[in-house]
Amino acid sequence: MTALRVAMIGYGFMGAAHSVGWRQAPRVFDLPADVEMTVVVGRNADAVAEAAAHWGWAESATDWREVIARDDIDIVDIVTPGDSHAEIAIAALEAGKHVLCEKPLANTVEEAERMLQAAARAAEHGSKAMVGFTYRRVPAVTLLRDLIAEGVVGTVQQVRAAYRQDWLVDPEAPLAWRLQKEHAGSGALGDIGAHIIDMTQFVTGQSVDAVSGTVETIVKRRPLLGSGSGLSGTAAEGYGDVTVDDAAIFTGRLSGGALVSFEATRFATGRKNSLTIEVSGDRGALAFDLEDLNSLQFYDRTADAERQGFTKILVTEAQHPYISAWWPAGHMLGYEHGFVHQVVDLVQAIHDGADPHPTFAEGLSVQRVLAAVEESAANDSAWTRIAAP
Amino acid sequence: MTALRVAMIGYGFMGAAHSVGWRQAPRVFDLPADVEMTVVVGRNADAVAEAAAHWGWAESATDWREVIARDDIDIVDIVTPGDSHAEIAIAALEAGKHVLCEKPLANTVEEAERMLQAAARAAEHGSKAMVGFTYRRVPAVTLLRDLIAEGVVGTVQQVRAAYRQDWLVDPEAPLAWRLQKEHAGSGALGDIGAHIIDMTQFVTGQSVDAVSGTVETIVKRRPLLGSGSGLSGTAAEGYGDVTVDDAAIFTGRLSGGALVSFEATRFATGRKNSLTIEVSGDRGALAFDLEDLNSLQFYDRTADAERQGFTKILVTEAQHPYISAWWPAGHMLGYEHGFVHQVVDLVQAIHDGADPHPTFAEGLSVQRVLAAVEESAANDSAWTRIAAP
Amino acid sequence: MTALRVAMIGYGFMGAAHSVGWRQAPRVFDLPADVEMTVVVGRNADAVAEAAAHWGWAESATDWREVIARDDIDIVDIVTPGDSHAEIAIAALEAGKHVLCEKPLANTVEEAERMLQAAARAAEHGSKAMVGFTYRRVPAVTLLRDLIAEGVVGTVQQVRAAYRQDWLVDPEAPLAWRLQKEHAGSGALGDIGAHIIDMTQFVTGQSVDAVSGTVETIVKRRPLLGSGSGLSGTAAEGYGDVTVDDAAIFTGRLSGGALVSFEATRFATGRKNSLTIEVSGDRGALAFDLEDLNSLQFYDRTADAERQGFTKILVTEAQHPYISAWWPAGHMLGYEHGFVHQVVDLVQAIHDGADPHPTFAEGLSVQRVLAAVEESAANDSAWTRIAAP
Amino acid sequence: MTALRVAMIGYGFMGAAHSVGWRQAPRVFDLPADVEMTVVVGRNADAVAEAAAHWGWAESATDWREVIARDDIDIVDIVTPGDSHAEIAIAALEAGKHVLCEKPLANTVEEAERMLQAAARAAEHGSKAMVGFTYRRVPAVTLLRDLIAEGVVGTVQQVRAAYRQDWLVDPEAPLAWRLQKEHAGSGALGDIGAHIIDMTQFVTGQSVDAVSGTVETIVKRRPLLGSGSGLSGTAAEGYGDVTVDDAAIFTGRLSGGALVSFEATRFATGRKNSLTIEVSGDRGALAFDLEDLNSLQFYDRTADAERQGFTKILVTEAQHPYISAWWPAGHMLGYEHGFVHQVVDLVQAIHDGADPHPTFAEGLSVQRVLAAVEESAANDSAWTRIAAP
Repeated sequence: MTALRVAMIGYGFMGAAHSVGWRQAPRVFDLPADVEMTVVVGRNADAVAEAAAHWGWAESATDWREVIARDDIDIVDIVTPGDSHAEIAIAALEAGKHVLCEKPLANTVEEAERMLQAAARAAEHGSKAMVGFTYRRVPAVTLLRDLIAEGVVGTVQQVRAAYRQDWLVDPEAPLAWRLQKEHAGSGALGDIGAHIIDMTQFVTGQSVDAVSGTVETIVKRRPLLGSGSGLSGTAAEGYGDVTVDDAAIFTGRLSGGALVSFEATRFATGRKNSLTIEVSGDRGALAFDLEDLNSLQFYDRTADAERQGFTKILVTEAQHPYISAWWPAGHMLGYEHGFVHQVVDLVQAIHDGADPHPTFAEGLSVQRVLAAVEESAANDSAWTRIAAP
Repeated sequence: MTALRVAMIGYGFMGAAHSVGWRQAPRVFDLPADVEMTVVVGRNADAVAEAAAHWGWAESATDWREVIARDDIDIVDIVTPGDSHAEIAIAALEAGKHVLCEKPLANTVEEAERMLQAAARAAEHGSKAMVGFTYRRVPAVTLLRDLIAEGVVGTVQQVRAAYRQDWLVDPEAPLAWRLQKEHAGSGALGDIGAHIIDMTQFVTGQSVDAVSGTVETIVKRRPLLGSGSGLSGTAAEGYGDVTVDDAAIFTGRLSGGALVSFEATRFATGRKNSLTIEVSGDRGALAFDLEDLNSLQFYDRTADAERQGFTKILVTEAQHPYISAWWPAGHMLGYEHGFVHQVVDLVQAIHDGADPHPTFAEGLSVQRVLAAVEESAANDSAWTRIAAP
Repeated sequence: MTALRVAMIGYGFMGAAHSVGWRQAPRVFDLPADVEMTVVVGRNADAVAEAAAHWGWAESATDWREVIARDDIDIVDIVTPGDSHAEIAIAALEAGKHVLCEKPLANTVEEAERMLQAAARAAEHGSKAMVGFTYRRVPAVTLLRDLIAEGVVGTVQQVRAAYRQDWLVDPEAPLAWRLQKEHAGSGALGDIGAHIIDMTQFVTGQSVDAVSGTVETIVKRRPLLGSGSGLSGTAAEGYGDVTVDDAAIFTGRLSGGALVSFEATRFATGRKNSLTIEVSGDRGALAFDLEDLNSLQFYDRTADAERQGFTKILVTEAQHPYISAWWPAGHMLGYEHGFVHQVVDLVQAIHDGADPHPTFAEGLSVQRVLAAVEESAANDSAWTRIAAP
Repeated sequence: MTALRVAMIGYGFMGAAHSVGWRQAPRVFDLPADVEMTVVVGRNADAVAEAAAHWGWAESATDWREVIARDDIDIVDIVTPGDSHAEIAIAALEAGKHVLCEKPLANTVEEAERMLQAAARAAEHGSKAMVGFTYRRVPAVTLLRDLIAEGVVGTVQQVRAAYRQDWLVDPEAPLAWRLQKEHAGSGALGDIGAHIIDMTQFVTGQSVDAVSGTVETIVKRRPLLGSGSGLSGTAAEGYGDVTVDDAAIFTGRLSGGALVSFEATRFATGRKNSLTIEVSGDRGALAFDLEDLNSLQFYDRTADAERQGFTKILVTEAQHPYISAWWPAGHMLGYEHGFVHQVVDLVQAIHDGADPHPTFAEGLSVQRVLAAVEESAANDSAWTRIAAP
């Protein structure tokens, strides 16, 4: 069996999650190819060496360009902050590698467009490109998509999608890189709003064609972090401006005509990682909550009227997506399982010569929706069309 | 339209609830006969007069025997403590009245047997007798029974029934009449255990034929109440013995063979009025929780495997039991609605000449199970058969 | 004890609910005045006579002007469709009556303004005016308001309020009066959107000062009802246009600066009467769901970090609003209890000479927000300020 | 850093779960020693070689005695069926290895006693022995134990513990080894009842001192499996007797006096892997449900009365047990994480020279309770004392 050799660029929180994916996928699923965790890359040599040792990568390196140039690398997995995605991904694709790029695809539409072009050129030579919206691969979300495709909700008439966290409620939480536009691109909108845009498009099979929205910075100044680190450190003197949004509330219009209400916020006190989506149609409804990620709620309007109600499907049966490789019925999965499934599907697609999803085109379409929300917000919430791809 | 004239004997908490039933039933439902709240009876003339005025009874009285002898009374509704049920009910039945008697039917099997005999004799002259297990008439419970009768759970294989409260967790809660065997007969067992025994028999259509159980007095001594009142008052000096159980845990065998686990307790910290029942069969399961009384959980093993799960049926649709007389879909009912439905069904049965349920025979059967639990508990939890009726 | 004599104008679904309020309030609570259900008024003499008999009103009548002119009427309770509220309420106030007017206060801002002026003039002579946003008086909602006033959520930073039903999902549901702009004024927005606007303003103690929104008619043509009834009847030939919205999605800005996301819809498949509100602040959060109306969720950010979480308060304890007059802890209330509490508070206010809430000014402010939503929706969702009162 | 070299004996479902534990622990946590997955042992050479390759064990072998004799093995991890635990564990301990033995410790009390003796002798030479009740290491369960130890529930007054599955509801489910007494020892009682006995003793810090119970085989005959495999295969002709229990219902008495209701069943239709425990005390209560394993319910009787209720603590904060090594707040863990934590704690204990829990003494105590339940069940549910250790 051939082996796919992986280089991971970046080693923050996402590096830990991706490492679990690379490590577990071949040990839990029957993959058509071996996976080798060849090298992890970071700017700080000591820190990245420690990460490599801890997470089980064979080597570490500090120059991603050199790594990309190596012949013994098949897949480049990018988990750096969004402002470096375009440069790395394009170089890797041009070097003939398969690329897995964490979401959001980029910080700007322009970058994402160049990435898509690079992916299209590379595809001609067999390189695959995939964006890391891993929540698609929570089994309940995949099942949600499958059930809509089977027609159980009928015509989609309304969608509600929200991603709520509360880690910024504390006004003394420091001015981290995620709160600075130059690094993060945007705030709650780009970070977690991107997830609910992608999930909406994924499960409905429709595109968000127009939006009207508002973005808000609730706490406008925060304590500075000390110099020497964009990520952490001791508080420097004084306060600085928060230059990204804390919350974004917007309404979207799907290609099929349905309205979608979106909310992305870091100020939902008590909500830790609450991504919820509900799709209402003329035959039924489906609802999902990431804080209860092993289940899916299904309402069937075609059932006996006396017995209608939301059915809580425990998505842990062997016939459910991805489950047969894991545990018996009723045994829970968690957050990182989506990262395992992402590796499974990428490896399978590479082996089959198929295109893995989410594609860069899908990643770009999320980017365009994000840009349209910002444009609308800057334009008194005027309805703003998403440019055709 | 003829009027049914009602005398209510007793005016405690249950008197308030029954008064709602008599007041609301003819105003919400289309009854085949009018209802007149003629007289309420209690020992304390002032207090009962105040209750009559407050609750809308036309008169008050202090001598129940005189009231029962009146020609202008059709129905005697007994809401006194259990130790007086037998005497009043038998006298009322012998006087040709219809009788509605609060649960438990009596404090002893012997009393209940005499009541049943009186009811049988009175039935020959058209008098109806009914026991007040009103939880049967929570719409979700009625639906639960109907669905089992339709076969949706198949063969019943296990039942779990629990009634949990926590009002005795405080060790300084006083020694009220409900904690004294001479007045209350038993504690959690007779008070709330009676409900889950009746509900189990009602929804399954089977009898509890044998039991093995344990009863427990967790706080054995409590502050005495002052003299002058068995119900409330200032604490007298010192402490007295609690002579009833605080909790009863027992296992029952249904006539169809299934095992039932029962728990009745006043020490389930944080559980205020939590009556739960779950019936498992080879085709499905049904579950109910009184703290979420407008819904019923249904699991259908015959459904598409991929979509199985517990369906939360909101029992507020027009086609559900009792609902069409109330509010539109999704509008909640509460505790007292069962008392309204009880009046509706009693009046209908009287009008139709039919036998309302729960019958005194059903009340007696609960009594026998309670006695068997106590016998088992006194006999090292030995399995104890319930004497055939 | 003096008696307050009530005339109720209208006898549809709301008439049934208000009748329960008038009937139960004096029988459950200790009111400072008696209540007499004197007369119910409707256009169809037979039908209103039947309603009077059924619901327990002493008389019926067909001319509301005559009834308002009677000396033996103290309170006029208006439960007609919104297009007649202004005329009746103003006349009743000018006749020196106290007025309880169902929500929405009127179909237009202009009507509501005239009603407020009438109420202000009448107040000089002691007449009280109240709007029927009864959900304020669900005990959990009252407690929610009280807890915010106590400061448990701190500074309000975000609010989410939604009212979701699904009775229009069926595309063959007929073109009832509620779907016709000339009768209903608006659709989901005015009918159920009004509730969440009022509740938001009530619980936060702040006003909605600006909105940006979208309204949508999802099913644009529906089967005509037969002639002879604006409310029901047999389908006439053909289809007619739905002239009100099916769903409204809008964002509001509170006077304190926080953003509110609102959704009102009749197309939320499987959601029967789901009014939800969540208030997030820098010290905590509170959340309520009308389909679980006996409880309130409270998150306390100031608690021990290890033990933080949403606490489900069962709002059935004696110390909770309105509860001590009802049942013991853990016994559920339902939909109509809010109507009872409304009567309790109105009677108390009349007795005390105090102003009952919601005032007509509050009703008008809801009307202005509704109008601003429609204006924004017609103006490409532009942010639209609510005119100062 | 020294390495601990592991041999795993057995490779069924539990082998997969333990492999995840060994693989993930050193990659997620900072362990004081390396872990090497040296060899996996099974009777079928080809199958075990495939398991080794798939799960990442360096070697495979077929003779566990030879493996135990190897010098390069530090830890023997036993995941075979219960009837072989004693022989392998005792041999491994006598060979100076540390032993991790899956639950139940053994199939009989006698075996478990010999295992404890072997562990005691081996402890003198530094060998550690641990039983695999991994549910102790679900973070919410560890937190539950910690909170009880801190006194938040006060004096424990009642406990309810249930483990409910439904995989035997189908009467045509075949007669697998788990349904045969000679292999499995017992049925639901030993398999899943063992978990709730251990968890009860673990979280309360008390022992179950006496029991009264009933065991039941609901479906008494099942289709035979074909020869050639005790685990799976084609159905042979005819049916065979089920020789273990399908359900066990029993009541226990804790050393502190509280009653515990236990239920273990494989016939709870719709319940897939539902382990629930609720501990009620005079100061509060705690409740856990394995189907919602990232949360813990806490009721604080000492809180402000108006705000009491069950708080759903999301046990995903950095200050909660085991969490800081995993993901940010609100990111869910699943079933296998307990196996990772088990390795973490075992490795730490070996490094520290401390005794890891659950000890073999604790495993034996569970075995004694199981035996007492069977004895009670055979003796008309008579209360049966658990022999002192």
